[in-house]
Amino acid sequence: MPLLVMKFGGTSVADLDRIRNAAAKVQREVERGYDVIVIVSAMSGKTNELVGWVEKTSPLFDAREYDAVVSSGENVTAGLMALTLQEMGVPARSWQGWQVPINTTAAHSAARFVEIPRANLDQKFGEGFKVAVVAGFQGIGPDGRITTLGRGGSDTTAVAFAAAFDAERCDIYTDVDGIYTTDPRITSKARKLGKIAFEEMLELASLGAKVLQTRSVELAMRYKVRLRVLSSFDETDESSGTLVCDEDEIMESKVVNGVAYSREEAKITLVTVEDRPGISASIFEPLADAGVNVDMIVQNISEKNFEDHQGSVTDMTFSVPINQVERAKRAMEDARAAGRIDYDELIVDTEVAKVSVVGIGMRSHAGVAARMFKALADENINIKVISTSEIKISVLIDRKYMELAVQALHDAFGLEAA
Amino acid sequence: MPLLVMKFGGTSVADLDRIRNAAAKVQREVERGYDVIVIVSAMSGKTNELVGWVEKTSPLFDAREYDAVVSSGENVTAGLMALTLQEMGVPARSWQGWQVPINTTAAHSAARFVEIPRANLDQKFGEGFKVAVVAGFQGIGPDGRITTLGRGGSDTTAVAFAAAFDAERCDIYTDVDGIYTTDPRITSKARKLGKIAFEEMLELASLGAKVLQTRSVELAMRYKVRLRVLSSFDETDESSGTLVCDEDEIMESKVVNGVAYSREEAKITLVTVEDRPGISASIFEPLADAGVNVDMIVQNISEKNFEDHQGSVTDMTFSVPINQVERAKRAMEDARAAGRIDYDELIVDTEVAKVSVVGIGMRSHAGVAARMFKALADENINIKVISTSEIKISVLIDRKYMELAVQALHDAFGLEAA
Repeated sequence: MPLLVMKFGGTSVADLDRIRNAAAKVQREVERGYDVIVIVSAMSGKTNELVGWVEKTSPLFDAREYDAVVSSGENVTAGLMALTLQEMGVPARSWQGWQVPINTTAAHSAARFVEIPRANLDQKFGEGFKVAVVAGFQGIGPDGRITTLGRGGSDTTAVAFAAAFDAERCDIYTDVDGIYTTDPRITSKARKLGKIAFEEMLELASLGAKVLQTRSVELAMRYKVRLRVLSSFDETDESSGTLVCDEDEIMESKVVNGVAYSREEAKITLVTVEDRPGISASIFEPLADAGVNVDMIVQNISEKNFEDHQGSVTDMTFSVPINQVERAKRAMEDARAAGRIDYDELIVDTEVAKVSVVGIGMRSHAGVAARMFKALADENINIKVISTSEIKISVLIDRKYMELAVQALHDAFGLEAA
Repeated sequence: MPLLVMKFGGTSVADLDRIRNAAAKVQREVERGYDVIVIVSAMSGKTNELVGWVEKTSPLFDAREYDAVVSSGENVTAGLMALTLQEMGVPARSWQGWQVPINTTAAHSAARFVEIPRANLDQKFGEGFKVAVVAGFQGIGPDGRITTLGRGGSDTTAVAFAAAFDAERCDIYTDVDGIYTTDPRITSKARKLGKIAFEEMLELASLGAKVLQTRSVELAMRYKVRLRVLSSFDETDESSGTLVCDEDEIMESKVVNGVAYSREEAKITLVTVEDRPGISASIFEPLADAGVNVDMIVQNISEKNFEDHQGSVTDMTFSVPINQVERAKRAMEDARAAGRIDYDELIVDTEVAKVSVVGIGMRSHAGVAARMFKALADENINIKVISTSEIKISVLIDRKYMELAVQALHDAFGLEAA
C-alpha cells in the first residue's frame, strides 16, 4: 500500500473545526488508496501556555520535566484527530512518541532522532487501520524519559517518518500555499514555485523564508524525502503547493529561483587591524566562544592609517544577527583588553539588510553575480559586503533599499514568468 | 527509608500558587526523613475541558482515544509539581503511568490495577531522588495503550501505590479537613473524627459523604493502607485530618461514629403482589436487567386486598436512586405485561430521604436500633423502610424531616463529645 505522511501545524489544528478540516484532507488521501501517517502539532497557543507555566515555575527548569509537560499538547491533538477520523469512518489510532517508539538522543528539548522502528505502526496498518496519528515534536530518550526536538520539531518528525516508512511524499500543511520566488508582501510579482530543489530550499530557509525549518529540509535532502508545502485552509489537490525535491526531478531549472532577504542583520567593522597571519582566528575565536553567529566576512586593505603602524594593516568587516551586536562588541573589547587583538575603532551599522539570490542553475551558469550587481547599480544601491556559495549570492546593503533591491532582482532574473 | 504517599486533588493543584503550596507540604515530609510518592490530579477544570473536546468531536467516542487525551491533564501537573519541588531544592522526578509502569486491565475509562512493579521508582529513590510525582487516574493496558481508571481514579492510584510500596501512610489532601460525624452544614455540632475504621468509612462513602471514593477505601481496607484525609489549604501537622485505618488501631470506639444521609432516594411500592416462593426474584431480576440499583427492600403482609385473591398476597416496597425511577417503573410494567409478575398498583414516593447511623461498635452493642427508633419517634418522625447491616442502620423517612432526623440522631448518640 503506498503511504503518505501529512503534517498539520498549530494553526491548522487550532480548534475542533480546523481539526475536522484537516481530517477531511486525510480522508481524501485514504480514499485515493493511501495509508497515511499524520503528524500533528499542539493546538495553537497550547504550547505557549505550557511553556509559560514551566518558566514561571522554574526559570532554570529541568529540561526533562519541561519536555514531559510541553509534549502533552501534541498528545491531545493526536487523540482528537484520531477521534475525528474515526467519526468520519476512517480507522485511525493515535500514537505518542514512546508508543511508536520514536527513539531519540538524550538531549532534552533539543533531541535528535536515533531510530523509528516500523514494527508497531506496520502491525496496525496490517490490522486494517488506515491512519496513524502521531504526536509531533516528541520522542523517547535512552533513559525512558520523554524528549522534545526543539524548534521546528514537528516538521522534522514528519520528514523522519517519511524516511522511515518510505513514504511516497511528505505533505506539510501550513498557513501559506507554497514557496514563492520572493515574499509576496514585497512584490506582487512574486510567483509560487511548482518545484524547488532541496539545496535551494535550504538556502531560502536559512535566509529567512520561514515556511520550513532548516533542519527538516536537511533531513529531507539526506533521505531524499519529497516534501510538499501546501495550505491547510485552501482546497488542495495533487498539484497544489510547492514540491521540494531532488534537483534531478526538476527538468529545466532557472539560473535563479528565488530572492530572499533578512532585516535582522548588523555590520561590524574593526578599523585598522594588524594584517598578520592568524589575525582572523584571533578575531573570530572570541566571537565563536561568545556564541555570536558570524555570517558574512570581508577583509580589505585600509590605506588611511598605514603610516601610523609598523607593518601592514587592514579593516575587518563582518555581519552578525542584530540581537547579537552587544555580545559581539563585548567579545571584541575583552579580546582587545586581553591583548589578543588590536584595532583603532569598532563601528556598528545596524541599518543594513541582506538580500540574496538563490538557484541551483548558478552552478552551470556564469555571469550571475555580474547580472546581480548591475541590477543593483542601476538602482544606485551600494553594496557593502558580498558573500557567495555555490548556489547563492548574498549582499549587504542599506536597509532602506531592501525592498527596492528585492524588486529589482526579481525583475532582473525574470522570476515573474514561470 | 520510610515512605509516604501524598495525593493532591484538582482544587489543590488548580494553579501554580496552589501547586507551590502543595509542594511545600511534600518538602516538609521529606525534611522529616520520608521518601515521598506524590499522586496528582489534573489542574481543576482541565479534565472537563479535555472531556468536552472529546465529546464534541465524537459523541460515541473510542475509549482508547478518550483515555489518551484525558490523561494528559495529570501529566502536566506531574511535571509542574516535579519542577516546583526541584526549585525548592528537593530532588524530584515526574512519572507518567506508562513509565512506572502502572499496569492495568484493558477496560478503557474504567481500568483496574493489575500490578505496579517497584523497580523503576526504587531505582530512582536509590539514586537520591526524594520524591516521585506520579500522574494519577491513569495506567497502561496490556496492549500498550494508555488507560484511565474512571471516577475517583486518583484516590485509588494513591492507595495502590501505598500498598505496592508499603507506605507508612497515604495522605489524601482535599478541600475538607477531615471526616465529620455528620455534615457540618446540617448541624454545627458535627465533630471531626480523629480516626475512623475502614468499614465505617466505606458505609459513609457509599452513603453520600463525598470525601473519599468508595473504591479507594475498599482497596485501602484490602491492603490495610492507613489513609489520612486532610486539607490542602490549612496548615497541617502530624495530627491533622482524619485517619482511616484498621479497627484494631482504634482503641475505644463509640457505638455510632457517624450519621449519614442521602436525598437522592425514591420509594416504590408494588401493591398486592402474590406471596409465593420466587416472587422476589420475579421482581428484582427485571430491575437488575434494567440496570436499576435497588437499595432497601421491605416485604410486608398486606391485609386489605386479601379477600380478592386466591392465596396470600403481600406489598413489596423498595428504594432506588431518584434518577432511576422511570427506568424502574418501565421494568415493572414490562414484567407485568409479560406475565412474570402481577400487582394492583405501583406507587412512587420521591419525597423521601435516607438517614443512617454507622459504627463498628454496633457489632458488640445491642440496643442501637431501639435507641435510633426512639430518637426519631421523639421527634414524631415516621419510619417508612428500615434496613440494617452489621455496622449500619438505615431508615427511609419523609424528606422534610431529614435535617431534623440527622440532628436528633447526632444528639442521641452523643457524637458531639469526643
